[in-house]
Amino acid sequence: MPRLKLVLEYDGTRYVGWQVQSNGRAIQAELQEALGKLLGGPVEVTAAGRTDSGVHATGQVVCFDTERTLPLKAYSRGLNGLLPEDIAVVSAEEVPPEFDPRRWSRGKRYRYWVSNRPTRSPLLRYTHWALFTPLQVEAMARAARHLLGRHDYSSFRASDCQAAHAVREVRRLDVVGAAGDEVSFVVEGTAFLKHMVRNLVGTLVEVGKGRKPEAWVAEVLATRDRTKAGPTAPPQGLVLEEVFYGDGPPPRTAGDSADVFDDEP
Amino acid sequence: MPRLKLVLEYDGTRYVGWQVQSNGRAIQAELQEALGKLLGGPVEVTAAGRTDSGVHATGQVVCFDTERTLPLKAYSRGLNGLLPEDIAVVSAEEVPPEFDPRRWSRGKRYRYWVSNRPTRSPLLRYTHWALFTPLQVEAMARAARHLLGRHDYSSFRASDCQAAHAVREVRRLDVVGAAGDEVSFVVEGTAFLKHMVRNLVGTLVEVGKGRKPEAWVAEVLATRDRTKAGPTAPPQGLVLEEVFYGDGPPPRTAGDSADVFDDEP
Repeated sequence: MPRLKLVLEYDGTRYVGWQVQSNGRAIQAELQEALGKLLGGPVEVTAAGRTDSGVHATGQVVCFDTERTLPLKAYSRGLNGLLPEDIAVVSAEEVPPEFDPRRWSRGKRYRYWVSNRPTRSPLLRYTHWALFTPLQVEAMARAARHLLGRHDYSSFRASDCQAAHAVREVRRLDVVGAAGDEVSFVVEGTAFLKHMVRNLVGTLVEVGKGRKPEAWVAEVLATRDRTKAGPTAPPQGLVLEEVFYGDGPPPRTAGDSADVFDDEP
Repeated sequence: MPRLKLVLEYDGTRYVGWQVQSNGRAIQAELQEALGKLLGGPVEVTAAGRTDSGVHATGQVVCFDTERTLPLKAYSRGLNGLLPEDIAVVSAEEVPPEFDPRRWSRGKRYRYWVSNRPTRSPLLRYTHWALFTPLQVEAMARAARHLLGRHDYSSFRASDCQAAHAVREVRRLDVVGAAGDEVSFVVEGTAFLKHMVRNLVGTLVEVGKGRKPEAWVAEVLATRDRTKAGPTAPPQGLVLEEVFYGDGPPPRTAGDSADVFDDEP
């Protein structure tokens, strides 16, 4: 039975998030409904990672199995005609039957967008965190270096995070843009804890506002205490941009538990 | 009685346009309502130009008179608390009582955004025209040069345009960006005819798609016949970015009629 991989873009504004829940519409449900219509029967999809309510994606990766053999265009153009306008298939390809979007992931890149103008921006209200105080971009960029590498990120995990341990690797954390206009954070790592990207951003913004010195973020990381970090940045600034894959599952590093990929940003 | 000038940003998606009409909510009405609450009485505002339903602005300019003397912050922070989330005041200043946002305008800059990816983009659906065929950006940029200068732009005016004549000056028409991603058109001129920017873009896109040669746009301009130009680009890609002013009304050029500023993009 062929297994298909889809790359999705979505505007998460009006959804409860990726995963089906009892309290509203989920992106997963919309996709399964559209696939059900296309393939004429129930379809279950699995994703590389969950995204919260209000969080967007330009590169979410999902897969599903089907006995129907349709041309790949049916899964891009065809599905895009069935999906609501805030969800779209960017590309489709057939993958080996062992492919698992979560377990095979070698890493993910997120982007977090801040609107740093002196007044709120109507055109950016669903995609940016509005911060009116001019941010010290260079100070945030220097502070971000303290957060790179393989560490216990307990200080940056949500209190209800279900992961068995908090050791993760952050490979990239760039702060780009101009104070007074738009500023964004590019965060790449093997996997992430629940709300980890939003907590990293909320902490760096404390430095950007001049409330905390650059070295403070290293202290926050070392304490492994969530109460020491900055506030969680709101969901609408976050975009899952890309999930990286190789030809198979990544080799396990000593110390990795099975849930190292169990992230919820 | 002090006259105040406001710069506005708005997301035009859910409005019938700038101007009050019988068939739905207008941005002008929302602003007048918020000002009425702030100032405790009816207020009438005039704008630099009308924008159509679905057209956005980051630099619309309006003015109004008031006998109340409030600090300028009341018109930015205060009004932003009263306005709906898709309209905001960017800045406020007092201007001479003769200031007229339309008659004093020395020019305007618009930007038109195209999403040129192979599939529709949910995150760009309210701010970009989705064109899936890769556009020839360089060909459009060369063709755009034929449209610069002072000409009769009858070929690019809406059939119901009310302007007395169609002579306008286009000072800048840049095509920027990358095929397959985002492409935008920067259009600056003294004033514009109804749908002029959207008709210029729709015509250049015919060249970008390879349907017409670059020199064809010069022929279209010369015919002064609206039926010869390309289709009108849809409203959601258009943003009024800036209105330019000097210390008083611009000097009249020979041949300018009183309605040279009467534009509706």
